[in-house]
Amino acid sequence: MVRLRDLGFVIGSSPTGSHNAITDVAGICVGHQTVLDDKPTAVRTGVTVVNTRPVGERSDLCFGGYFSFNGNGEMTGAHWLEESGLLSGPIGLTNTHQVGLVRDELVAAEVERDPDASWCLPVVAETYDGFLNDIDAFSLTAADVRAALVDADTCPGGVVQEGNVGSGTGMVCHQFKGGIGTSSRRVELESDTYTVGVLVQANYGSRELLRLDGRPVGRLIDAAVTPLPTDPSVADAGSIIVVIATDAPLLADQCKRLARRATVGLARVGGTGGNGSGDIFLAFSTGNRVPLHATKPTSVSTLPAGAMTPLFNAAAEAVEESIWNALCAAETMTGHQGRVVHAIPHDRLAALR
Amino acid sequence: MVRLRDLGFVIGSSPTGSHNAITDVAGICVGHQTVLDDKPTAVRTGVTVVNTRPVGERSDLCFGGYFSFNGNGEMTGAHWLEESGLLSGPIGLTNTHQVGLVRDELVAAEVERDPDASWCLPVVAETYDGFLNDIDAFSLTAADVRAALVDADTCPGGVVQEGNVGSGTGMVCHQFKGGIGTSSRRVELESDTYTVGVLVQANYGSRELLRLDGRPVGRLIDAAVTPLPTDPSVADAGSIIVVIATDAPLLADQCKRLARRATVGLARVGGTGGNGSGDIFLAFSTGNRVPLHATKPTSVSTLPAGAMTPLFNAAAEAVEESIWNALCAAETMTGHQGRVVHAIPHDRLAALR
Amino acid sequence: MVRLRDLGFVIGSSPTGSHNAITDVAGICVGHQTVLDDKPTAVRTGVTVVNTRPVGERSDLCFGGYFSFNGNGEMTGAHWLEESGLLSGPIGLTNTHQVGLVRDELVAAEVERDPDASWCLPVVAETYDGFLNDIDAFSLTAADVRAALVDADTCPGGVVQEGNVGSGTGMVCHQFKGGIGTSSRRVELESDTYTVGVLVQANYGSRELLRLDGRPVGRLIDAAVTPLPTDPSVADAGSIIVVIATDAPLLADQCKRLARRATVGLARVGGTGGNGSGDIFLAFSTGNRVPLHATKPTSVSTLPAGAMTPLFNAAAEAVEESIWNALCAAETMTGHQGRVVHAIPHDRLAALR
Amino acid sequence: MVRLRDLGFVIGSSPTGSHNAITDVAGICVGHQTVLDDKPTAVRTGVTVVNTRPVGERSDLCFGGYFSFNGNGEMTGAHWLEESGLLSGPIGLTNTHQVGLVRDELVAAEVERDPDASWCLPVVAETYDGFLNDIDAFSLTAADVRAALVDADTCPGGVVQEGNVGSGTGMVCHQFKGGIGTSSRRVELESDTYTVGVLVQANYGSRELLRLDGRPVGRLIDAAVTPLPTDPSVADAGSIIVVIATDAPLLADQCKRLARRATVGLARVGGTGGNGSGDIFLAFSTGNRVPLHATKPTSVSTLPAGAMTPLFNAAAEAVEESIWNALCAAETMTGHQGRVVHAIPHDRLAALR
Repeated sequence: MVRLRDLGFVIGSSPTGSHNAITDVAGICVGHQTVLDDKPTAVRTGVTVVNTRPVGERSDLCFGGYFSFNGNGEMTGAHWLEESGLLSGPIGLTNTHQVGLVRDELVAAEVERDPDASWCLPVVAETYDGFLNDIDAFSLTAADVRAALVDADTCPGGVVQEGNVGSGTGMVCHQFKGGIGTSSRRVELESDTYTVGVLVQANYGSRELLRLDGRPVGRLIDAAVTPLPTDPSVADAGSIIVVIATDAPLLADQCKRLARRATVGLARVGGTGGNGSGDIFLAFSTGNRVPLHATKPTSVSTLPAGAMTPLFNAAAEAVEESIWNALCAAETMTGHQGRVVHAIPHDRLAALR
Repeated sequence: MVRLRDLGFVIGSSPTGSHNAITDVAGICVGHQTVLDDKPTAVRTGVTVVNTRPVGERSDLCFGGYFSFNGNGEMTGAHWLEESGLLSGPIGLTNTHQVGLVRDELVAAEVERDPDASWCLPVVAETYDGFLNDIDAFSLTAADVRAALVDADTCPGGVVQEGNVGSGTGMVCHQFKGGIGTSSRRVELESDTYTVGVLVQANYGSRELLRLDGRPVGRLIDAAVTPLPTDPSVADAGSIIVVIATDAPLLADQCKRLARRATVGLARVGGTGGNGSGDIFLAFSTGNRVPLHATKPTSVSTLPAGAMTPLFNAAAEAVEESIWNALCAAETMTGHQGRVVHAIPHDRLAALR
Repeated sequence: MVRLRDLGFVIGSSPTGSHNAITDVAGICVGHQTVLDDKPTAVRTGVTVVNTRPVGERSDLCFGGYFSFNGNGEMTGAHWLEESGLLSGPIGLTNTHQVGLVRDELVAAEVERDPDASWCLPVVAETYDGFLNDIDAFSLTAADVRAALVDADTCPGGVVQEGNVGSGTGMVCHQFKGGIGTSSRRVELESDTYTVGVLVQANYGSRELLRLDGRPVGRLIDAAVTPLPTDPSVADAGSIIVVIATDAPLLADQCKRLARRATVGLARVGGTGGNGSGDIFLAFSTGNRVPLHATKPTSVSTLPAGAMTPLFNAAAEAVEESIWNALCAAETMTGHQGRVVHAIPHDRLAALR
Repeated sequence: MVRLRDLGFVIGSSPTGSHNAITDVAGICVGHQTVLDDKPTAVRTGVTVVNTRPVGERSDLCFGGYFSFNGNGEMTGAHWLEESGLLSGPIGLTNTHQVGLVRDELVAAEVERDPDASWCLPVVAETYDGFLNDIDAFSLTAADVRAALVDADTCPGGVVQEGNVGSGTGMVCHQFKGGIGTSSRRVELESDTYTVGVLVQANYGSRELLRLDGRPVGRLIDAAVTPLPTDPSVADAGSIIVVIATDAPLLADQCKRLARRATVGLARVGGTGGNGSGDIFLAFSTGNRVPLHATKPTSVSTLPAGAMTPLFNAAAEAVEESIWNALCAAETMTGHQGRVVHAIPHDRLAALR
């Protein structure tokens, strides 16, 4: 798995966490279930889950918030997140047609786990993989969702698989092969150090607008050597889901502010929120714990507003690098109806350094 | 099926449409699939669909908007509705745990229907029927969703079944039996007449606060004669979904304004948007048509802002009456774990006139 | 000054604070400057300020949030309130044309008071008093704003003047004389008691829709005895500003939720958010303190979501009673161009008990 | 007045309008009043107005919408804009402390102009010029506002003054001298050509993050030769107001979508929406006309959602170039307390080409 830094590029000025991944935020785990098949039809899809807390700490809610930069997409659970500012996990990511399956299955898993739970409203988001995946076949099953949950619950450490994996399996980004990417940043505020971790499901954009730390690489990569997908509408039909986690003690409003900064990272890479794109960004903080069944006021902590700017910058950098990590890790894929989407050529990137 | 007006009560001052139902707005159809079983477990659930246009006119989108008065609930499709202001049908209603099933199945039906459709983001909302229905059994099937769709597509006329039907089957309202209710109003503006139609899935509230056209009926009905549900938390665990349709030529912003007025009707009946309640209100206008695959600007029409007040009042009245129609039509039900929820006693209401 | 309870009516079921006023929330003070003149023109206006904290505690910010039920009005400071969830005082209320004067003067007073303040973004809201006040004369002066600030800073105790006073001077409510009203509720949660206090500037609505605890009093008061204002458009040209304060430890999101419940109280009295109305509701909590110049995380406290319902009900009740207190306290006024707006006849109300 | 293109740089791929200014959208005029003084104190401020329609067409409202990327700022008139989706002009821009003065004076001018106007809720936005301007002196007068209005009403043609002018007089951008900038783009959709025009009041950002078409120019300009402002907090204390106009037939929702794309242009230049920044973006369309006093439905037109992407890209490009035009046109200024803010050195930019 190649990452952007392997090619010699560094985005921004803040240091990364030890894995340069969303899992650098303590307690966060990521699980993938990749679903590939060629019969009877080309299946290139999957499901990814992000645990906001370790198993056993699930009833400690996180503050969270979201921002829809361009809402041509689905993210369930948004009404209660907006209302309460509270988020529990796991968060699901998948393809556009099967958000419902993943959502209901997360409900089923939760009511099994917690007999006191009457209902829950899980957050599940999607992007459209129908160019490479025969999405109308609805290939994902409830068992796949459970497998991703198990993978997340048992994730051995901080390494997160990127590229053509889990819900990122069939994704296309800036007309290159896209998928899952992750990155992190560490921020020092007074005497405290906080981590901002990001995971993206990158499936949007045109090659023309792609930038690498400012360089117009999309225009510099020869389409004769690395062909564009055959359907130009892919450039506007995609989406990007961004998940931002931090251990900084934020309240819900502050998470929402952080979520909005994903726009900055996205714009630097070349995203403009095209009409067909579902660009929905979620942020949450593990730095406060609100018990699900509290009956008395809970003590929480809030970072001063004046200290938010470094976190904003960190989030923007980590989003930018996460998208690039998705692009670098993804491999050329042939899918539905024999369509091919090429990986971005690493040698061409390295030559631009 | 008893309706409020059968008991001699009239809400507000505007005339109703011919069926006093959401179907008085031309082109709107409602379909129900009721799912009842006693083995292996008590199933009291269902699915309801509201068609925004007749079959064959589905690619003419409606302007629409929503308001979340208290977001402890789910309504899918909200991001794109908020972004684009456009809504296609059918709209789905169901129980809390199976929103995803209904949502994905509406996608499946749509991609079957329209081969040009890449993706769609259907609106599906829910309330929690877990007091009477063994909701953790996930009893609804894809076939149930299809049956409701067929019912809506073939709905013989303007009569809408109310009470314990479709997605309203297991609902509880103000600690009486609730469910589906509908009503409509006609509004004259200059020389034009417009219809505002409402359908509610009423599953919220405490008996203490229930009001009938101002009368505190909830406090006047003897709990010794008509017992309360055994679990008092039902009063705060419920929700109400409101769907408002109109043929007045509204834009998306104007629909959002209309949706917000459901709060007024709800408050008059005694709703306060309790913490546990998912009170999400959707409004749309059939009075404009925006082709799904338009490539050129579309001519539409907008009611003057100054003419909105009568529509606001009409919506508030129709919501108030719809909730009362749900209460009047619903019948006493015994469900999960032998729990009983009583119908509101019609004779006691009539005596208050 | 007559209040609703003096006429024998009690709204809702929760007890009031000792003054049944917003000032029952510790630390809150209200100041009025009433501006009356007849030459050269009929001046019937004023300014009211609500201090969120005592002088000397101003750099301890409050969490706050707002809800615009119908945004045909102005409330400055809303962007930062929405962004940060933080509010400092004083809050200003005035007439529609001079929001800017009050806003800039609050800035001037603040930069005088706090030499470290670079800028501030005060919250100032308005309703339109142009039926009784020659509003185009822009009669309010900077000195009036300062006088109201002094009045608030030296407010002797918990009694708040209501009716034709301060910013409420020229207001009209349900086609009777309106103005300033206030009320409060006490809520017991576990072993803690919290206060919810409300102040309204009531200037909206039609007589037809006016309700007193459910009774359709507007239709029962003979217009031949108590004439309507000569301009029927007054019914739709007004607005209502609601300020809700509480000492319960709420975060910003929770304040926003509380603000939304003003809609319930308003709807019970007969408000429907007519198109011409600016119905903007502000809520804040004194129960947490966020230092303006903090550099480290601040400890705050949050009420469990599950405990919000009693606060919601309290807010709805206190809004309902505040509007009625405004109506009861206001006295018949003759103003601009000899127009008369009548006080609601107390004897007629008492007869309905 | 030097503009970015004079230095040989072209932003993006779309052609500009004939003046590369917001005034390329037919009917738009810009007026400035610059207020400079040195006694008794350093005054470096002003007011700018943007007319949305020519005089005589003011009662034809525009659809409009706004987006607050970071709401540490003020923009009046936002509640009604959000509610109704309608905007009239003129739009005011000024310094932070005197938004109220400009707002009330626009009201006064409007009620003088239109005897039928009861009230209006003008849009006035601000950024903080207190580093160079003695902002606590509140130097702007009502006469200044009227002068800017006259300037806009009589604007001779499409040239818009940029840099240290009007409300941009004392502004600082990326720690260089900032101010007013403008740009435009032409977009072909099917057989129609539309114009997107932008005007910015640029007063935000750190030199470190400044980018010119991807090049990290902020890091390449020697601070020994072009010193930074003495107060580093200027980097986070600023703001940017963006006004986007188009003749494309957009509805209010579509304007809001367009406004959100200002974030992309801002991010490309190096803005991240720092905590202290008020980054509020307004967009409106002259392509539809909604009569202020309409009593019947009005015919309007809406661009297909699928055609929005080119407009989004155009807006992002024009915002990016407008900020650069502000930087290029602004000249070194000495202000309050002898502070100096340097213009960006044109020769250094040209050398980077």
